[in-house]
Amino acid sequence: CRFPPPCLGLGGSCRFPPPCLGLGGSCRFPPPCLGPGGEAVARLGMGFRPNGCLASPQETLMGKYGDNSKLIYELQDQGGELLALRYDLTVPFARCLAMNKITNIKRYHIAKVYRRDNPATTRGRYREFYQCDFDIAGQFDSMIPDAECLKIVHEILSDLQLGDFLIKVNDRRILNGVFAVCGVPESKFITTCSTVDKLDKMPWDDVRSEMVGEKGLSPEAADCIGEYVQLHGGLDLIEQLLQDPKLSQNKLAKEGLGDMKLLFEYLTLFGITGKISFDLSLARGLDYYTGVIFEAVLLQQENDHVEESVSVGSVAGGGRYDGLVGMFDPKGRKVPCVGVSIGIERIFSIMEQRVKASGEKVRTTETQVLVATPQKHLLGARLKLISELWDAGIKAEMLYKKDPKLLKQLQYCEDTGIPLVAIIGEQELTDGVVKLRVVTTREEVNIPREKLADEIRRRLEPCSLSVQSCLTL
Amino acid sequence: CRFPPPCLGLGGSCRFPPPCLGLGGSCRFPPPCLGPGGEAVARLGMGFRPNGCLASPQETLMGKYGDNSKLIYELQDQGGELLALRYDLTVPFARCLAMNKITNIKRYHIAKVYRRDNPATTRGRYREFYQCDFDIAGQFDSMIPDAECLKIVHEILSDLQLGDFLIKVNDRRILNGVFAVCGVPESKFITTCSTVDKLDKMPWDDVRSEMVGEKGLSPEAADCIGEYVQLHGGLDLIEQLLQDPKLSQNKLAKEGLGDMKLLFEYLTLFGITGKISFDLSLARGLDYYTGVIFEAVLLQQENDHVEESVSVGSVAGGGRYDGLVGMFDPKGRKVPCVGVSIGIERIFSIMEQRVKASGEKVRTTETQVLVATPQKHLLGARLKLISELWDAGIKAEMLYKKDPKLLKQLQYCEDTGIPLVAIIGEQELTDGVVKLRVVTTREEVNIPREKLADEIRRRLEPCSLSVQSCLTL
Repeated sequence: CRFPPPCLGLGGSCRFPPPCLGLGGSCRFPPPCLGPGGEAVARLGMGFRPNGCLASPQETLMGKYGDNSKLIYELQDQGGELLALRYDLTVPFARCLAMNKITNIKRYHIAKVYRRDNPATTRGRYREFYQCDFDIAGQFDSMIPDAECLKIVHEILSDLQLGDFLIKVNDRRILNGVFAVCGVPESKFITTCSTVDKLDKMPWDDVRSEMVGEKGLSPEAADCIGEYVQLHGGLDLIEQLLQDPKLSQNKLAKEGLGDMKLLFEYLTLFGITGKISFDLSLARGLDYYTGVIFEAVLLQQENDHVEESVSVGSVAGGGRYDGLVGMFDPKGRKVPCVGVSIGIERIFSIMEQRVKASGEKVRTTETQVLVATPQKHLLGARLKLISELWDAGIKAEMLYKKDPKLLKQLQYCEDTGIPLVAIIGEQELTDGVVKLRVVTTREEVNIPREKLADEIRRRLEPCSLSVQSCLTL
Repeated sequence: CRFPPPCLGLGGSCRFPPPCLGLGGSCRFPPPCLGPGGEAVARLGMGFRPNGCLASPQETLMGKYGDNSKLIYELQDQGGELLALRYDLTVPFARCLAMNKITNIKRYHIAKVYRRDNPATTRGRYREFYQCDFDIAGQFDSMIPDAECLKIVHEILSDLQLGDFLIKVNDRRILNGVFAVCGVPESKFITTCSTVDKLDKMPWDDVRSEMVGEKGLSPEAADCIGEYVQLHGGLDLIEQLLQDPKLSQNKLAKEGLGDMKLLFEYLTLFGITGKISFDLSLARGLDYYTGVIFEAVLLQQENDHVEESVSVGSVAGGGRYDGLVGMFDPKGRKVPCVGVSIGIERIFSIMEQRVKASGEKVRTTETQVLVATPQKHLLGARLKLISELWDAGIKAEMLYKKDPKLLKQLQYCEDTGIPLVAIIGEQELTDGVVKLRVVTTREEVNIPREKLADEIRRRLEPCSLSVQSCLTL
């Protein structure tokens, strides 16, 4: 586990790692704490339903990830079954649809995935990390679910204020069309695609060399590809390519370009084209994509405090995979799917470093009130009062000491960010009241005991409306 | 995966299994959907913080579970490390404390655990299932955290209305004291303990035979144990045993009985002794307990529809384990801990069967409103309106069809339980309004478009206050 305790909660919902024991390069975020990504998902609530499952038969995962298959985390043979830990959330989802004969569903899934890799935590590579996926499966009218996936990515990245970002969009059919019209034999489409995928890390000349050298394309084919894959733009570029004398002759490319145009129309209605770029260099590594593909990249770091070691580039990616479900169906029945994976670990890293850099004090607890006593021999009074508050649904804590000093109890609230203290002493017991103290202002007021829970709720109400006001409590 | 889709959500929060691909006898509940147990935990909010981690070095898990160790799910050697999937949440938690030098923490953890077992789903045995744990670690005044654990179990079982239940409580020190005064050699304490543990499934005579036959105790020792372990009661029994001529001479037993008395005092202040029984037959199987132990059992099924195949007995168990953290600390530093595991899968089974038996219709979605159109060629209008609603934080859906029939759209709401429909047609576009329809009453009202989000929120407000009113929407 990379990060030491304590857990940096934020406004009543724990977000960063509580003490959690990982292997080197292992787990970091606890399951019930979905973090900002999870909150955003919950807030978006675009009709997605949660879903999850960990181990798969090994064969399920084989032959879906190309070279990456060596990173699949295998389990020993357990009673005649070879098992493996999931490499991503997409392939198990596809198998799930096939096995359960589901032809129409929308779901999200936030869960760990596993890579049999040497952990390199400084480079942000872990063996066990979280992904957050959305997928829409079913036979629907063209590009409507695809547009929704892009809207979700746009919304999450905007909401989390991660800085400027760009969502690159392309289509495997357009890429394959480009390869075809440039004279690449169909058997080399996939391998050429992997080479194009390196354009975000290598200049075109190096990519061209790899095509001609390693992949055996003709220099003419490579140059032809180069003319296309260095293009990026918006609707104008789509129109231009639809008129392109070579590309417009290719059935696949024409289909892809037509859909791309439709997609941009929908994205215009969503008002998000400002951050979307139709980029022909985008190829995506995995084998299973069949149509639209996309990837969101952060364009810059927002402050200088971000450690260089965390290289944040791509934070989300996805696309259409219409053939994957059919691979798991005994009769090969296909279910068209489109989905997106959000790299929530990377997003958490950025947010965490921002919190660190800001030096802001954040609440580390959801506790609303500490039950305290000012004199000795009042443990019984504390236990009785805290029990009443718990029963009334108040999040209350007390120190596990028979006779703690009042100062220690108040200090605990300061340290953890508990906003209120309910003080019960001999005088209060006699009067049937509880002294309610606001930690930050030190204001104290006597409340009739039977009204205490309501008063606590009333005073903390702004919290439930705005996280911000909690933080400044 | 045992259960077929669809997901039976309940009042705006998905609770039962969405389609999830398990191995035979494998996963059932998705991680972001914590179910009623999770909700109860969140509601209780007794200052617990979430925590989590999956794979452990194999040696971490070895030698902690006695015979059960054969059920530990091992992973292949991965780069020089033998790994294993966690058998429970307690041992990894203890290692976590030792590795991070944490001496004081309170946390909950809802996560999957793994047993290398042949799945027997009909008997409720799975290879991969959820547990929910609470633990309080730290050097505190006697029995205060222990009482809180029991209060939590009592509160969860009461809140979930699972029917009548009983929480049995005992103490390993009292049991060991009994063994000592009955003349059992100390080397046979643990094995005798396992035999006593069978008293909930076997009559005393059989347990006695096993003690004398298999375990080699003298008949006198067995009879002496029998006199004690068949006792159960409350404060009166504790007082009686404190006066017991033999037991009161044993230091360990006296300590345990003194603490048990204190515990009952605290439980009386919590008002929960009605469902707590001091039961000397309770032994608990695992090796790591050192003090108080407890187990909650459901006393009866609430209705006759419950299938016999699901045997629900114990639904929660736990105790004090003061030595476990020290086993992981290089210097053997101990951190006293007390904790409880809730068997949320069993609890879900009961609740699920109750829902099935009741025939109640439950909402299967969190979606607040469906955006619909009554005429053709209005996909653009729908996309624009849904985008506005999403941006305003409304959970909205639409059908992914260019020109769906209005009846189909309304039917979809009926089927999934979406309570409202926002209808936008040519007239509404001209008038700058949206027609809001309440699905159950078919009431329709025109709302100015800019006020639509607020109106939806206003109409669904009771939902956020009461789950019940959501259900009857």
